Amino acid sequence: MEVFEAMKERRSCRNFSTEPVGDETIEKILEAAGWAPSPLNMQPWGFIVVTAQDVKEKIFSEADRCRKWALEKSGWKWLGGYGLDFLKSAPAIIAITGDPKKTGVDMFMEEGGVGYQHACAAAIQNMHLAAHALGLGSLWFTFFDKKAIREILGIDPEKTPIGLVCLGKAGGDPTPAPRKDVKKKTIYIR
Amino acid sequence: MEVFEAMKERRSCRNFSTEPVGDETIEKILEAAGWAPSPLNMQPWGFIVVTAQDVKEKIFSEADRCRKWALEKSGWKWLGGYGLDFLKSAPAIIAITGDPKKTGVDMFMEEGGVGYQHACAAAIQNMHLAAHALGLGSLWFTFFDKKAIREILGIDPEKTPIGLVCLGKAGGDPTPAPRKDVKKKTIYIR
Repeated sequence: MEVFEAMKERRSCRNFSTEPVGDETIEKILEAAGWAPSPLNMQPWGFIVVTAQDVKEKIFSEADRCRKWALEKSGWKWLGGYGLDFLKSAPAIIAITGDPKKTGVDMFMEEGGVGYQHACAAAIQNMHLAAHALGLGSLWFTFFDKKAIREILGIDPEKTPIGLVCLGKAGGDPTPAPRKDVKKKTIYIR
Repeated sequence: MEVFEAMKERRSCRNFSTEPVGDETIEKILEAAGWAPSPLNMQPWGFIVVTAQDVKEKIFSEADRCRKWALEKSGWKWLGGYGLDFLKSAPAIIAITGDPKKTGVDMFMEEGGVGYQHACAAAIQNMHLAAHALGLGSLWFTFFDKKAIREILGIDPEKTPIGLVCLGKAGGDPTPAPRKDVKKKTIYIR
């Protein structure tokens, strides 16, 4: 698939068919992640591929707990009807973890130490583009408490959970999300 | 260009020809950025396109100050010989800023509030892929003090500088950076 087409046509998918995703496809998506740039090429990412149903159910329960908590805290009514069943039905969920020690020179800067997270986010974007090019839907999901997700997935205490990528064949056509004109978000210094 | 080819062949470029980058090319790269996913589709990014030589020189001076400071702090000898002239010679530098208020539901979470930064990083990755597909070299540069870069670029105090993307025709073939086998960074929970 052509790169601009992949970027433009990728959608956040919240409705998956239960058809399993093959190991070879998962490996291609992870390889794409690994091509992302990172500070000092430290490749700070790690991946946990979850296909076990009981673990997906635990992720669902944690996300649903967060949803209720955020609804109370924010008063955002849409959260009341925001269904999270895709966490149970997505055939695969890949957790991306980052290593804060692999953050590059910004480890010495006062406000720094986030370079490893940015690199992991770039890797996640590659995963979405790869998934779309391979005919899969994907969703970048971050609605969890870090401590809870560490326990569910047994994440090394020295690593930071960055996000979850839900993967599978789309159960329907995901709705396109409109984009603002980037020209209105751009300043030129000539 | 095919999407996997773009991801795999993109390199960090530190040697640019001085040939200007056309406005149309810049716009395509920014449009690619705008296709990135973001929490609640809030599109938290903003762009400052710098082609003014005096401003590039100021960015260079700030980066060089950081380099010397980090050399002293880290003792990493390679920093002593790390040339930053590409900041002066790159025909365009695009600063990406993020809006912390557009971070999605994670604004209510204790450890949260970084979703907008991750979205900006995904947008930056799209920019690199777009630049490569359009025949340009690019570099993700983050070696600056936020306060200093705010002053140089006149960044709104409510926005966070996320990174700089240097852009231009590559002056030579950038060296490929070897990748670790992602299989060794992956755990399966089946």
